[in-house]
Amino acid sequence: MSIVVIGSVALDSVETPVGKVENALGGSATFFSVAASFFTKGVKLVGVVGDDFPQEHVDFLRGREVDLAGLERVSGKTFHWSGRYGDNLNVAETLSTELNVFESFQPKLPESYRDTQYVFLANINPELQMDVLRQVRNTKLVVCDTMNLWISERKAELLETIKQVDIFVLNDAEACQLTGESSLNKAAKRLLDYGPERVIIKKGEHGSASFTRTSYFSSPAYPLEDIFDPTGAGDTFAGGFMGYLASTDDLSESNIRKAIVYGTVLASFDVEDFSLNRQRSLTRDEIESRFAEMRAMTQF
Amino acid sequence: MSIVVIGSVALDSVETPVGKVENALGGSATFFSVAASFFTKGVKLVGVVGDDFPQEHVDFLRGREVDLAGLERVSGKTFHWSGRYGDNLNVAETLSTELNVFESFQPKLPESYRDTQYVFLANINPELQMDVLRQVRNTKLVVCDTMNLWISERKAELLETIKQVDIFVLNDAEACQLTGESSLNKAAKRLLDYGPERVIIKKGEHGSASFTRTSYFSSPAYPLEDIFDPTGAGDTFAGGFMGYLASTDDLSESNIRKAIVYGTVLASFDVEDFSLNRQRSLTRDEIESRFAEMRAMTQF
Repeated sequence: MSIVVIGSVALDSVETPVGKVENALGGSATFFSVAASFFTKGVKLVGVVGDDFPQEHVDFLRGREVDLAGLERVSGKTFHWSGRYGDNLNVAETLSTELNVFESFQPKLPESYRDTQYVFLANINPELQMDVLRQVRNTKLVVCDTMNLWISERKAELLETIKQVDIFVLNDAEACQLTGESSLNKAAKRLLDYGPERVIIKKGEHGSASFTRTSYFSSPAYPLEDIFDPTGAGDTFAGGFMGYLASTDDLSESNIRKAIVYGTVLASFDVEDFSLNRQRSLTRDEIESRFAEMRAMTQF
Repeated sequence: MSIVVIGSVALDSVETPVGKVENALGGSATFFSVAASFFTKGVKLVGVVGDDFPQEHVDFLRGREVDLAGLERVSGKTFHWSGRYGDNLNVAETLSTELNVFESFQPKLPESYRDTQYVFLANINPELQMDVLRQVRNTKLVVCDTMNLWISERKAELLETIKQVDIFVLNDAEACQLTGESSLNKAAKRLLDYGPERVIIKKGEHGSASFTRTSYFSSPAYPLEDIFDPTGAGDTFAGGFMGYLASTDDLSESNIRKAIVYGTVLASFDVEDFSLNRQRSLTRDEIESRFAEMRAMTQF
């Protein structure tokens, strides 16, 4: 099964305790589709870039067999995010956000995208997320993410979006911000009350927790000694998760758990280098080997 | 197999967001031995109390079949800790620490204790921990804990103690404080270099991680919506862990993992009420049922 993803395609300048990069390939839709591409070919990307977007990045995405029919190229500069991470790699300090061509982005799904059964709404404005939902038909699984900005500025629209999705993925700080709860277990219960069938809370180095009304699953993070750059880890998690689900087309609890662990594995590779550099050499064998390690380190 | 534990027996005054207690039963040796008593009878306690220590607490410990031959009763007041927890239940704010009779505590193991194979050194002064190690013979498993106070004031002695123990159990903040590392995975490696065969890092609501030179095991916490009082959770974890190990007398990796999960389960009950109140009604069936839930929530 194929997947359609709507999100940002960006150029990032990132500084972490171990180094920095300038104008490196980034964006939620980019990290997502590259991660998903290790499982599913033809991930359909919807996004926008400016006329400064390097051809080499387009070539890289094509090399990962990402479908770029929905990637608009318009006059102007590409979305640029600049951020810094201190010793606490769970929290990014945003230095600047230049929306550029992303400011007037209106997702338009090509006709060839509209029957895609797996849909991922990355952390864009919830009004645009809803707009996308109006353009798709016959979905089987809709997953959405969000970010602190929309929780503070578009809360009503976000709650409206969540109602219409099957799985809501967000991080621990966002879950607490959105619900006003300090306990994640309480926050998850509140989020389920908003409508989605499942809530997955990403906890950075502490792994993730998946909640439905009747089940709970906890996955640790893969233990790394050095994290080079956490940028994109959340979208990479989502990409690995949905890529595996779409490739197996099995939404049972046990398969969703496997998908969460594949998402975790993909995210662990993402943070081993800046931008998508680690993904360039990553192989399916490496993924399977780390998946097996995840199983070994959780069994008792 | 029996266990000997050296630590504090205290009266605690604790305030949390949901309530408070005054002069309630507490102390590391108390929480530890009650937790262990669900698996192993005759846990041998070494500690000291003053002449104000209520007989009902002695009766409760006897009811749990804890061996009190090593519990000294001396003239003066019992160790009293007073603390408060805010919304972040991982961090206690100490309001007062009145050592009282605990100030001049010199652990003296009764002859009947000296051949005990399982030894737990709770978070007392490392000089006293070493003193205890000189009094035991033929140990099979020595586990030790510590706390921030000894890391800042008795670091050299603590490092000397750690060299002589099999398993070092501490929390995440202590692991970082002792090693100067901000990554737990790096901190664990450093701690193993100090000598113990295994390091278990307790991460509160994020569960725990166990490290040896060749293995890694991650256990989540049991998901609770409300935490009444986290006091004693770490010692209760250690008690459940060692109680299960001593009862099975099997130190294989797979059994140690089970013991970690039993420790987690016991700690999850501890925090459901103030002091040791939950433990008073706790049954082995409830423990087994939660252990089974832990397995279900981690399998994929």
